[in-house]
Amino acid sequence: MNSNLQDYSHKRFNILTGEWVLVSPHRAKRPWQGQNEEVSKEKRPAYDDKCYLCATNTRINGEINPDYKDVFVFTNDFAALQNDSPSFNVSEGLFKAKSETGICKVICFSPDHSKSLADMEIEDIKKVVHAWQKEYKELGENEAINYVQIFENKGAVMGCSNPHPHGQIWSQSTLPNEVDKKDKQQKLYFSKNNKSLLGDYLQQEIEAKERIIFENDDFLVFVPFWAIWPFEVMIAPKKQQKNILELSEDGAKNYAEAISVITKAYDRLFNTSFPYSSGIHQAPTNGLDNSHWHWHMSFYPPLLRSATVKKFMVGYEMFGSPQRDITAEIAAKRLKELI
Amino acid sequence: MNSNLQDYSHKRFNILTGEWVLVSPHRAKRPWQGQNEEVSKEKRPAYDDKCYLCATNTRINGEINPDYKDVFVFTNDFAALQNDSPSFNVSEGLFKAKSETGICKVICFSPDHSKSLADMEIEDIKKVVHAWQKEYKELGENEAINYVQIFENKGAVMGCSNPHPHGQIWSQSTLPNEVDKKDKQQKLYFSKNNKSLLGDYLQQEIEAKERIIFENDDFLVFVPFWAIWPFEVMIAPKKQQKNILELSEDGAKNYAEAISVITKAYDRLFNTSFPYSSGIHQAPTNGLDNSHWHWHMSFYPPLLRSATVKKFMVGYEMFGSPQRDITAEIAAKRLKELI
Ligand SMILES: O=P(O)(O)O[C@H]1O[C@H](CO)[C@@H](O)[C@H](O)[C@H]1O
Ligand SMILES: O=P(O)(O)O[C@H]1O[C@H](CO)[C@@H](O)[C@H](O)[C@H]1O
Repeated sequence: MNSNLQDYSHKRFNILTGEWVLVSPHRAKRPWQGQNEEVSKEKRPAYDDKCYLCATNTRINGEINPDYKDVFVFTNDFAALQNDSPSFNVSEGLFKAKSETGICKVICFSPDHSKSLADMEIEDIKKVVHAWQKEYKELGENEAINYVQIFENKGAVMGCSNPHPHGQIWSQSTLPNEVDKKDKQQKLYFSKNNKSLLGDYLQQEIEAKERIIFENDDFLVFVPFWAIWPFEVMIAPKKQQKNILELSEDGAKNYAEAISVITKAYDRLFNTSFPYSSGIHQAPTNGLDNSHWHWHMSFYPPLLRSATVKKFMVGYEMFGSPQRDITAEIAAKRLKELI
Repeated sequence: MNSNLQDYSHKRFNILTGEWVLVSPHRAKRPWQGQNEEVSKEKRPAYDDKCYLCATNTRINGEINPDYKDVFVFTNDFAALQNDSPSFNVSEGLFKAKSETGICKVICFSPDHSKSLADMEIEDIKKVVHAWQKEYKELGENEAINYVQIFENKGAVMGCSNPHPHGQIWSQSTLPNEVDKKDKQQKLYFSKNNKSLLGDYLQQEIEAKERIIFENDDFLVFVPFWAIWPFEVMIAPKKQQKNILELSEDGAKNYAEAISVITKAYDRLFNTSFPYSSGIHQAPTNGLDNSHWHWHMSFYPPLLRSATVKKFMVGYEMFGSPQRDITAEIAAKRLKELI
């Protein structure tokens, strides 16, 4: 590909959101004089009696966690969305608001307080995948739920308030902004080409090779051409699937393997338990024809240069557009070397 | 207004970007167990011989800063955009990229290393406003520059690598994402109503009163109905102006006063030098008819509960949409009490 992409400022187009990212490859050379993150080198115990996610412990609202052995899911005690709030609509001139209802859950990946997905066996990650499937299905069958967002915040720097391995599921009545953008872009392409946008893109990635980190029979793990975060990664099924319910038993295992491979590589990159937010974007559960959807999981990790130096998405990024220093190709190469 | 907005989850519409924010007022009650920021209580000297922004000091590239007395502007030594990079275009199937050129500058607000805008006299802030005008004009007259983004990152938590009071100006050949959204929304409204979208909105704010923090003859300082950050604030001229060049001499002074009032209130809120990113969105310098533009300045501060507890825009926010806990009305009330 055009070698200017490795040397000079440019914008890259995100086919899924329709937005641009500014890439400034030459900027990786600037010295760092800003804030350093703290890294906790503390080894965590397998059980912590003060952790509200550990088995048999009592949560803030008085409920007692069961003595769970693999995955444990419960409704968030401080949910941002509730399913019993009233329905209302504000439309006073340029003040526009609408009630939003939903169900928020917490999913503990393992009873072992000391682990993260990177330390878990593929068989155990597969149990997490099965729990995600169950939740997506059950929540999606609820008439009032039209979209299910599965995500994980890992690490204190990502606002994670408890190191116990866990993720969240926020499900709601409308499509959030990011999903709405991807819905529109995929629909546009599908209606023109009668093929999956991401599917065609993955074909190009397979031919180009330079951004692929890992692949197995069902999945591609790669740095998207338009990645925003320094070591952003996407996991996507090679064959179009609308949502994670379409995974075969083997597919679920291969998905678990893909998650295992990338989270292990991440931990090796800066020799630290690598922080990130990850999330699955998949078809809404709104009962519409979503045949344009091709589900995928993304990892947005903030670290840039070391365990303590992160990329700040601030001033220009907030007012202008996301901006990155190292290119997607360099990031992919570095991660691939750690597999 | 509908009292449900203070009690139940809802989405609010941002008229300028066309996007939604999720508001979860009941969530302000949840306990905080996550990361705390460090606060530097260190008193800075008026001159620091190791600071590359202080007058008469040598910068990394060997240049020596002049013995400046008020505002000092120079081209960024590690610019994300350069004006001598080649022009290129990549369009290989779904890989789309374009070269982007520009000029990045740094603007020191004061030679006094110990100060921030909050500590400066209104007369001195006015000099900063005049420098912004000069830069917007000069950069905008450059054929290759079609948009000028003025911004400030303040505080280590906002990725600011040097506490010396300074901001930045990144100017470039195309419109970044956020500006493009606001350009479209304002244009749509203007072409329908032949009036400024923000102008009509400000009228509604003046009648509603509940989100206004401060006003003077020319400016309104308020928390927008759709604010994302806990204490996000906007400063906007009451009468439509496309860009800051339309400020009268009195207008520039009143703008400086508005900046002074809000930055002082911020510092009082959590008794700390309040971190934020701020930025001015104004008409592109692309030579097109930009009569739909109404310039405004926004402050995006991360702190939520105290000098050490910030709001994390992570998992759900990255994959779904921005989400806030306290309402815009409560935030405005708290800030107003500090004026
Ligand atoms: O230019 P600085 O202050 O070195 O860097 C800071 O502001 C830039 C513009 O918002 C960001 O891209 C950087 O991530 C941030 O650390
Ligand atoms: O739900 P938690 O882990 O308490 O909170 C974390 O994740 C949420 C969802 O991304 C964010 O809204 C919070 O800002 C963050 O601190």
